Amino acid sequence: MSKMNGAQALIRTLVNCGVDTCFANPGTSEMHFVAALDDVPEMRGILALFEGVATGAADGYARMADRPAATLLHLGPGLGNGLANLHNARKAHIPIVNIVGDHATYHAQYDALLQSDIATVARNVSSWVETVERPEDTGSAAAAAVATAASAPGQVATLILPADVCWLEGGVVAAPESANIRSTVDGEVIEGIAKCLLSGEQSLLFLGGTALRARGLAAAGRIVAATGAALLAETFPARVERGAGIQPISKLAYFAEAAVDQLEGMRNLVLVDAKSPVSFFAYPGKASDLVPSGCEVQTLAGGGDDAIAALEALAEAVDAPAECPTLAVAFRPERPTGPLTADTIGQTLGALLPANAIVSEEAATSGFGLGHHTAGAPPHDWLSLTGGAIGQGMPVATGAAVACPDRKVVCLQADGGAMYTIQALWTQAREGLDITTVIFNNRSYAILNIELSRVGAKTSGTKAKEMLDLSRPDMDFVAIAKGLGVPATRATTAEEFTEQFERALATPGPALVEAMIPGLD
Amino acid sequence: MSKMNGAQALIRTLVNCGVDTCFANPGTSEMHFVAALDDVPEMRGILALFEGVATGAADGYARMADRPAATLLHLGPGLGNGLANLHNARKAHIPIVNIVGDHATYHAQYDALLQSDIATVARNVSSWVETVERPEDTGSAAAAAVATAASAPGQVATLILPADVCWLEGGVVAAPESANIRSTVDGEVIEGIAKCLLSGEQSLLFLGGTALRARGLAAAGRIVAATGAALLAETFPARVERGAGIQPISKLAYFAEAAVDQLEGMRNLVLVDAKSPVSFFAYPGKASDLVPSGCEVQTLAGGGDDAIAALEALAEAVDAPAECPTLAVAFRPERPTGPLTADTIGQTLGALLPANAIVSEEAATSGFGLGHHTAGAPPHDWLSLTGGAIGQGMPVATGAAVACPDRKVVCLQADGGAMYTIQALWTQAREGLDITTVIFNNRSYAILNIELSRVGAKTSGTKAKEMLDLSRPDMDFVAIAKGLGVPATRATTAEEFTEQFERALATPGPALVEAMIPGLD
Repeated sequence: MSKMNGAQALIRTLVNCGVDTCFANPGTSEMHFVAALDDVPEMRGILALFEGVATGAADGYARMADRPAATLLHLGPGLGNGLANLHNARKAHIPIVNIVGDHATYHAQYDALLQSDIATVARNVSSWVETVERPEDTGSAAAAAVATAASAPGQVATLILPADVCWLEGGVVAAPESANIRSTVDGEVIEGIAKCLLSGEQSLLFLGGTALRARGLAAAGRIVAATGAALLAETFPARVERGAGIQPISKLAYFAEAAVDQLEGMRNLVLVDAKSPVSFFAYPGKASDLVPSGCEVQTLAGGGDDAIAALEALAEAVDAPAECPTLAVAFRPERPTGPLTADTIGQTLGALLPANAIVSEEAATSGFGLGHHTAGAPPHDWLSLTGGAIGQGMPVATGAAVACPDRKVVCLQADGGAMYTIQALWTQAREGLDITTVIFNNRSYAILNIELSRVGAKTSGTKAKEMLDLSRPDMDFVAIAKGLGVPATRATTAEEFTEQFERALATPGPALVEAMIPGLD
Repeated sequence: MSKMNGAQALIRTLVNCGVDTCFANPGTSEMHFVAALDDVPEMRGILALFEGVATGAADGYARMADRPAATLLHLGPGLGNGLANLHNARKAHIPIVNIVGDHATYHAQYDALLQSDIATVARNVSSWVETVERPEDTGSAAAAAVATAASAPGQVATLILPADVCWLEGGVVAAPESANIRSTVDGEVIEGIAKCLLSGEQSLLFLGGTALRARGLAAAGRIVAATGAALLAETFPARVERGAGIQPISKLAYFAEAAVDQLEGMRNLVLVDAKSPVSFFAYPGKASDLVPSGCEVQTLAGGGDDAIAALEALAEAVDAPAECPTLAVAFRPERPTGPLTADTIGQTLGALLPANAIVSEEAATSGFGLGHHTAGAPPHDWLSLTGGAIGQGMPVATGAAVACPDRKVVCLQADGGAMYTIQALWTQAREGLDITTVIFNNRSYAILNIELSRVGAKTSGTKAKEMLDLSRPDMDFVAIAKGLGVPATRATTAEEFTEQFERALATPGPALVEAMIPGLD
């Protein structure tokens, strides 16, 4: 029998399969896994103080590395703490391999305090859940988990690992399994859509997921040039390449009323790795399905298809120009002066965003206007909140910085959402990650103040308003950041913000700027 | 049709059923519920920045009020964020009513970004899960949820509330349903156990749950006096009444080796609202079941039984003295001087703990010696981490303070566990809760340093050790607390700690003392 234990074989297999980063928040049942980290030097373990940071960081890592990281979580409660960001990852088809430690196989019968039904919770966010029962099987299970995670369109795979399966000898390293690659879209589908786009009817190319890299956007821009089709991106894409030299794309609006305006008059809606547009929430008396009546929805590329190749083939089919004629022109706004607002922060961002930056944005109401100020900035990646579960921005920034140590990461984070996974700052400090975080502090769940009236809730009372208010006490993000090891400053004017943001960008390692912006009323 | 909407009928029913406190972290789908708070003045809404704070606070509230509070959570991800502390509550049979908002009934089909399978996740922690489909049913569902939660032995009930069911008119307020009360234990069972205890064989009364109030302990003390039985409490009881004038009780040790010593030689083990003792985790080569071979396990009272009445009946059956002869004597240790350690903090606690205090303790390795210093302090309640999912101490303190505004709450919190739900401090500041928090800052997951060797993991490497290390950077809990609105100080000697702790106790409202104690090595 192999002298390697189950944990050692598992980690060795992960590394062989290209998974060499593990965002971890371990407990006693994971101690043999933790010990085995020292036996496999290629595996990097990164500690998080809270599991939502670990799962969100794995998401950000995979978005930028285009391959999965692992998480290490402590039984059912650890998985629960990581669930919200796994939900976000699932919705965006981000590959993640979760390793969830469990009690030893023979211990489960005693219903000890930490015993719970891990598999059922895992299934809510995972395409693949497997409990490994013997050390002989940890390697093959790990290989299967990585292949499943990496298989198109990308998914969350969860491996449940009992403690004794870790510690017993007999571990067998497995060879990598091949993942399902993206399918080539059928020529007939492309021809049909080409015909439709050339029919003269008003058409919309609706792009999401993998279509939003520069190459896909360039092909889309060529199609637009040849056909007059409109072009929109899904509201919350996982990763958009944008900036000077890249075909720009607007997003479908978050508020359904504005989205309805964007879609009005469309007769053909062509989905390119995107779902047919629906309202984010339901509102009394308003439609959930945003597709205008009489508009036909067709799919050019689904989640498992090679969307970029499909767009390029479609461009050929519509006889598009060889070069995209509508690439964004380099442009930076002036440095702003005067009051500090979400808008002036956007100007600063546009003025200063470094080339090749990665932007992790969960700015909520403050994010609505950030895009146009940065449209002509040097090329950069823009990562959004993908599944509606707030608390993703700072963990995603963390993982993106781990994946891309040579790129500057800018995290644009609303105050309310910041407080779900604020512990991310500590991991940023520990790992010396090059992240500049901007907290948009408006002392409010501002989005809910808008939504309260949009859902038609009638209230003149104070109790409802208090549920949306983040003052009383005002949070001091400079103090919180310092407490977690990240240097921080507070800006109250556009000039202060610009100066502080520029200094943070110029300094390697993490920094935070708390931007004091007006509330809604 | 009723002009009341579903949310109004639901909240009115909750209040009619005695649930008048709601720990909330709402989103758009809960806006009509939030608006309805102003229509039912008796319902208090308390905002949390993170759902784990809300669920843990509901737990602490119920432990002290002996009736459930409600939580308000935002769809599947909100429930996920609250899951760890619901796990803790489930394990200790704490009554909680969760209201989880969901998309409008007709919106689910569109699989919007926040859509997920809420009910399946809820079932992992809930005895009762119901999705309300019509506004006419919110009242009756709320009444059923409260009755289920309050039914012996106490449970988590989860009501899933689609947004349209909230906003549509037709709500009907329901009358309270009666909860299942605790059963009276059969006289034959009591006689049988009495005979056994009087047999001369070494016996142990093993108390948990509801048995650990002063009245139950007094009866147990009388039984011990009459029979020579040993007396132990479960390792992590939800609530123990203790201090001068109350029968003291030791707890079963956390580490299985020590527990085995405590149980050695026992021939009869009598369970009183406690589970038969098992090891918290499994360890290679060690037994999970801690009951010595040849020891017979009998149940005096199960979770659904009236354990206190059973103990009193058993005391009569063994012809026990009318008064408990072994009540704790009033005693306070001297104020300590010199180095600050978990032990000197215990001395300060014993010297200063106010009468009628509530202690929420999640001190982990620092908590092992706190009990004996406070054994003779004025009567107080001691609340433990009940399900092994760390991050419960500060939320439980929050809820206990809401339930008992006239009592001082002392939260004894390890540094590692603090960082899962540190957001609790903000709610404490917002509500002006009278809580003194002590952070045991040893810059380490110290328990894992112990467990790493106990599980037999062989490592001389640095990567494993780094996974257990909370320095690099050191956290500054004074800064974090100030950032969340709670005044804080740092103590590095016993004298400083005593002075700061005394001042914090003397000042109404929340305060935090960061106690810098030695690490393990």
